[in-house]
Amino acid sequence: MSKGGKSDQEEGEENMAAWLVGLNTLKIQPFKLPPLGPHDVRVRMKAVGICGSDVHFLKTLRLADFVVKEPMVIGHECAGIIEEIGSEVKNLVPGDRVALEPGIGCWRCDLCKEGRYNICPDMKFFATPPVHGSLARQVVHPADLCFKLPDNLSLEEGAMCEPLSVAVHACRRANIGPETNVLVMGAGPIGLVTLLAARAFGAPRIVIVDVDDYRLSVANNLGADGVVKVSTNMQDIPEEVERICEVMGAVGVHVTFDCAGFNKTMSTALSATRAGGKVCLVGLGHNEMTVPLTPAATREVDIIGIFRYKNTWPLCIELLRSGKIDVKPLITHRFGFSQKEVEEAFETSARGGDAIKVMFNL
Amino acid sequence: MSKGGKSDQEEGEENMAAWLVGLNTLKIQPFKLPPLGPHDVRVRMKAVGICGSDVHFLKTLRLADFVVKEPMVIGHECAGIIEEIGSEVKNLVPGDRVALEPGIGCWRCDLCKEGRYNICPDMKFFATPPVHGSLARQVVHPADLCFKLPDNLSLEEGAMCEPLSVAVHACRRANIGPETNVLVMGAGPIGLVTLLAARAFGAPRIVIVDVDDYRLSVANNLGADGVVKVSTNMQDIPEEVERICEVMGAVGVHVTFDCAGFNKTMSTALSATRAGGKVCLVGLGHNEMTVPLTPAATREVDIIGIFRYKNTWPLCIELLRSGKIDVKPLITHRFGFSQKEVEEAFETSARGGDAIKVMFNL
Amino acid sequence: MSKGGKSDQEEGEENMAAWLVGLNTLKIQPFKLPPLGPHDVRVRMKAVGICGSDVHFLKTLRLADFVVKEPMVIGHECAGIIEEIGSEVKNLVPGDRVALEPGIGCWRCDLCKEGRYNICPDMKFFATPPVHGSLARQVVHPADLCFKLPDNLSLEEGAMCEPLSVAVHACRRANIGPETNVLVMGAGPIGLVTLLAARAFGAPRIVIVDVDDYRLSVANNLGADGVVKVSTNMQDIPEEVERICEVMGAVGVHVTFDCAGFNKTMSTALSATRAGGKVCLVGLGHNEMTVPLTPAATREVDIIGIFRYKNTWPLCIELLRSGKIDVKPLITHRFGFSQKEVEEAFETSARGGDAIKVMFNL
Amino acid sequence: MSKGGKSDQEEGEENMAAWLVGLNTLKIQPFKLPPLGPHDVRVRMKAVGICGSDVHFLKTLRLADFVVKEPMVIGHECAGIIEEIGSEVKNLVPGDRVALEPGIGCWRCDLCKEGRYNICPDMKFFATPPVHGSLARQVVHPADLCFKLPDNLSLEEGAMCEPLSVAVHACRRANIGPETNVLVMGAGPIGLVTLLAARAFGAPRIVIVDVDDYRLSVANNLGADGVVKVSTNMQDIPEEVERICEVMGAVGVHVTFDCAGFNKTMSTALSATRAGGKVCLVGLGHNEMTVPLTPAATREVDIIGIFRYKNTWPLCIELLRSGKIDVKPLITHRFGFSQKEVEEAFETSARGGDAIKVMFNL
Repeated sequence: MSKGGKSDQEEGEENMAAWLVGLNTLKIQPFKLPPLGPHDVRVRMKAVGICGSDVHFLKTLRLADFVVKEPMVIGHECAGIIEEIGSEVKNLVPGDRVALEPGIGCWRCDLCKEGRYNICPDMKFFATPPVHGSLARQVVHPADLCFKLPDNLSLEEGAMCEPLSVAVHACRRANIGPETNVLVMGAGPIGLVTLLAARAFGAPRIVIVDVDDYRLSVANNLGADGVVKVSTNMQDIPEEVERICEVMGAVGVHVTFDCAGFNKTMSTALSATRAGGKVCLVGLGHNEMTVPLTPAATREVDIIGIFRYKNTWPLCIELLRSGKIDVKPLITHRFGFSQKEVEEAFETSARGGDAIKVMFNL
Repeated sequence: MSKGGKSDQEEGEENMAAWLVGLNTLKIQPFKLPPLGPHDVRVRMKAVGICGSDVHFLKTLRLADFVVKEPMVIGHECAGIIEEIGSEVKNLVPGDRVALEPGIGCWRCDLCKEGRYNICPDMKFFATPPVHGSLARQVVHPADLCFKLPDNLSLEEGAMCEPLSVAVHACRRANIGPETNVLVMGAGPIGLVTLLAARAFGAPRIVIVDVDDYRLSVANNLGADGVVKVSTNMQDIPEEVERICEVMGAVGVHVTFDCAGFNKTMSTALSATRAGGKVCLVGLGHNEMTVPLTPAATREVDIIGIFRYKNTWPLCIELLRSGKIDVKPLITHRFGFSQKEVEEAFETSARGGDAIKVMFNL
Repeated sequence: MSKGGKSDQEEGEENMAAWLVGLNTLKIQPFKLPPLGPHDVRVRMKAVGICGSDVHFLKTLRLADFVVKEPMVIGHECAGIIEEIGSEVKNLVPGDRVALEPGIGCWRCDLCKEGRYNICPDMKFFATPPVHGSLARQVVHPADLCFKLPDNLSLEEGAMCEPLSVAVHACRRANIGPETNVLVMGAGPIGLVTLLAARAFGAPRIVIVDVDDYRLSVANNLGADGVVKVSTNMQDIPEEVERICEVMGAVGVHVTFDCAGFNKTMSTALSATRAGGKVCLVGLGHNEMTVPLTPAATREVDIIGIFRYKNTWPLCIELLRSGKIDVKPLITHRFGFSQKEVEEAFETSARGGDAIKVMFNL
Repeated sequence: MSKGGKSDQEEGEENMAAWLVGLNTLKIQPFKLPPLGPHDVRVRMKAVGICGSDVHFLKTLRLADFVVKEPMVIGHECAGIIEEIGSEVKNLVPGDRVALEPGIGCWRCDLCKEGRYNICPDMKFFATPPVHGSLARQVVHPADLCFKLPDNLSLEEGAMCEPLSVAVHACRRANIGPETNVLVMGAGPIGLVTLLAARAFGAPRIVIVDVDDYRLSVANNLGADGVVKVSTNMQDIPEEVERICEVMGAVGVHVTFDCAGFNKTMSTALSATRAGGKVCLVGLGHNEMTVPLTPAATREVDIIGIFRYKNTWPLCIELLRSGKIDVKPLITHRFGFSQKEVEEAFETSARGGDAIKVMFNL
């Protein structure tokens, strides 16, 4: 039924994966693959990045409303090589290098049919309980969610399409273009890819804000037009907004991406954005927030919610291929796929500091 | 220079107006009209409504960032009869009955030129300091902001175009149509006109929420599909959201208009709105709010800010003319234009209760 | 595997269908149903309408780029009763009365994923070669494309959701609302449902144009604000545009739906629409057209292409359920499902005249 | 009343301008300036470009519906130096180098108020009868339509903001961004600035089509990803569409700008654009066109009309300032402001060939 060479799977090689088996506990254990459907492919994973949400699950066994009740394979930023294709697959062949979009919509609900499958209530998403993730030797995935990488992109860059997709989706929802001055709150991995994406969408001026000098220096090197160091103190907001506006210049901030999501960053975002602008809430710091909503509303500053992404892989690949975006400087640490290295890698990512993106090479 | 009959103004009749001269103090005093420009008209006021913001200025001498530092003529919901027209005015003649749009954009800033004149930083708006209002025997106003009333509309209905405009602008920004189930938080004057406007925009199902039985009964009479009585207690939110969703039905709430603007109403709004929906913040209750922003953002529920309106008078007049909207039931109290009646009228409006819209007949 | 009562199919009853077997030749013959998939339902057809495209296929064996090369079951406007459901179907049970959306997107291409599945290049659509249609005793169809009818709607009204969907999709793409004056070129079945849909979307003023007095009288009865009788002579366009604009009134035409699609109707549409407006091309009369494109473009009158529909059934059902639209007056002729009646029915539909919608009751 | 140094005007220097006085006849003659209003500035012209429409008026005394009935000063692509400012002008001072936006909206009609002032029926536009143009030593113009040039831009580049504005407006209306593959029909001045603007808006792939090798080589040098030489023969369309699609690549054409506006270019545009795409009609070649409208409509390819521009100068200046666009290579010929040179300049522009943009230095 399936096309492709002699498969390891068939030969009985055990597929190993990194399982989240309890609080702070990851174990490399066998992971039985599901059968290959006619529209599926089997992919040998080669590069898997660690996301903040992976770390959050490891440290708390939950994220937002999702709770890890059963052992679950972790990981969702990934790329690999096609090993086997289903009988109906036409766009891929074994040997193709692909980046994987991790979420599978139901395509039967109204949100999927309207093109908003990212908020489909029945989505199956890598490493979001109860769905297994992709930090594994092999995974089975729908072919239409595996995007062929051009020769000039590495598999690591393929895996980076996932965090970059968050930024691209945010830039699309905020309608970033050559007339949109952008403010980014937070210079962590998502803040930094948002900087890169906003630039690729044509933003003429991008200012980025953080509490950390090192991260601001990275932002500077990645091409921010201005960086502003801030405190974590709420009282400093008015003065900091003033500094941000000065660095931005007379036209002001059209769109702010809050890539942190705390009371302070959101309050700053709402105050710093000009009349008629938008604030995109990308980061998920605080659940409940105390923020000056009304003064923002009376300037018709809208707040745009962002959840994951949709239809972003082709664009991410094109932006990387053409060189409009270079994500390689964000990959600061690399690990192999042994029990010890998996543990070290997650510790490194959790520690933050100079670790921006931690990547497994399988 | 001007076209029109013998003008009272020229004959020396003194133009009287209601001045806000201090905290809780309104005085009827002479109000000298500015010269009539070539594109202006002079209007004899016949109907002026009292808005919550008028009462707020009276009680506190401020609203948002606006502070009353000098005596100021109050009032901005108004209609009257043209007495004199400027030399270049072509669309109006003396005797025409008109409703007045109270705000004059600068038409030189980028926001005006992009069609968002309602958030023009240099707007001159009736009774927003330092600009005088329209609770006066006569006012001078640009002709293009005076909209002729058809024969079947009263001058009171003309004055009601102002609060109705807030609702129409909100419905436009939220893109209300035959597929948008609507939730309205608050059954005060703005909540009620929002109910009427959402219906006229085609909303298939409208549920309205308030703490007051009388107001909910008015909403019922105006055609709400469901009403939900709520408390002022934050703890009740989850149970109330459940009740709201039950009354709305399986499809859920696509757009919520928060016409109150308090922590509780906004929190309820954010929780009750379905994934991909919108919450419009119309009411100006709290300045800073504590609300569950992040859970809403992760369902891509956007928050849309609303400030006044733009280009709404022609539509309001058409909706009233055609009978799609009937605002007459909202006018619950009427007063003449004597010192005593002005004071009584504002007291009545401030007291709330069964007073929905209080109207002066001059 | 499947849930549901004893199935006729299983008992060996032969499923009969109306096959287009050659030019002008329809034959009732057995039609073997495909196996029922886990997300499919088997539906006993009860009401099937005849569409202009059905007639076109019968008379020419082609439509646009589609050519009938093999015998094909005809028909696609339909409603019926669920007989059997697949193992994964949750929203329907046997006995449910449903309207069927006839097109199945691939959900793997970029257009499907962006929510534009109506222009999916791999769509499988009833009675569009090589896909069979639904003028049959029974069909198998995906459950998510079968929409339950409320008790107050007949199965015939269910079948009318299909032509109504064309109108609803056009109104959506043209953004019809309470500020959009509408001109409809052509008072055939699609012109008439467009009139009804535009009204339900809130259009304040709708004028409809045709060459036929009877059809204009039907439009009048359905609530058109004005009707204009025109010729088929190109030279009459300027005078006819003038008459149309007079009937429409001073504000002018914001959106024109050309439901005929001929040189003359499209030229009239482009000339009659005001600056900044839109012309929707719905009818498929001429393939190549000679029209004054440039004068329209310099008034920024956009031309919007319309192909079928997407996500329209829930709205159509709601508009019919609530009484905002009544399609019953459009059903002018009814036939049973014998060889003779099928032939007569298609002849009646092809003849036009007083036949607006011809319906089979199976 | 006015601020500024001793004015030449006041001293009696006669203001000279290039008047279109008859068919093919331009005369340098005195041009009396209007009085300086409080919001106006007086500008000494330094750079004025020749537009195709200027040439068209010279050769035919008409363009579209506009007819030159009285002698009229020609020219509208211009930049200069502020000499005097009105009493209310705050954003400019004498000596400022400015680019001039040539059209003045009425700001009283509904189109102006909705932000579509470019299609205002009462617009006053340089050198569109009966309004005088700007090929003059001095002009008086509203200050808000004079945009200060940064130090790194020449006055010639300032004048180029006008043709560039056409392209920017088209890119905005077509929503060009990093996911929009662009096809440009015609490599004349407007086609070439459209190429530059589409690139600045992020278009990943731009193919340009012309009949002329020289123009295609210019397009190549300006960074087109592909060029396609075509004939003027209608029969060649299918083969040329095939070649265009091959050069564009598998994803296809999302947006086509027809910068010529002929039967052939528009037919090619409609056929080459993929389902769900857009064709922008920018060029004004033929008035009436014979084109395959219906096949395009059934793929939901929309046709977007483009008329002039609005709110484009700040963006054009920013794109030039930042180096994202370089228009200097387009300026191929320069002339002084004598009777003889004016005649030669218009002849050069009319001849075409290697003359792309012909510029006066005054």
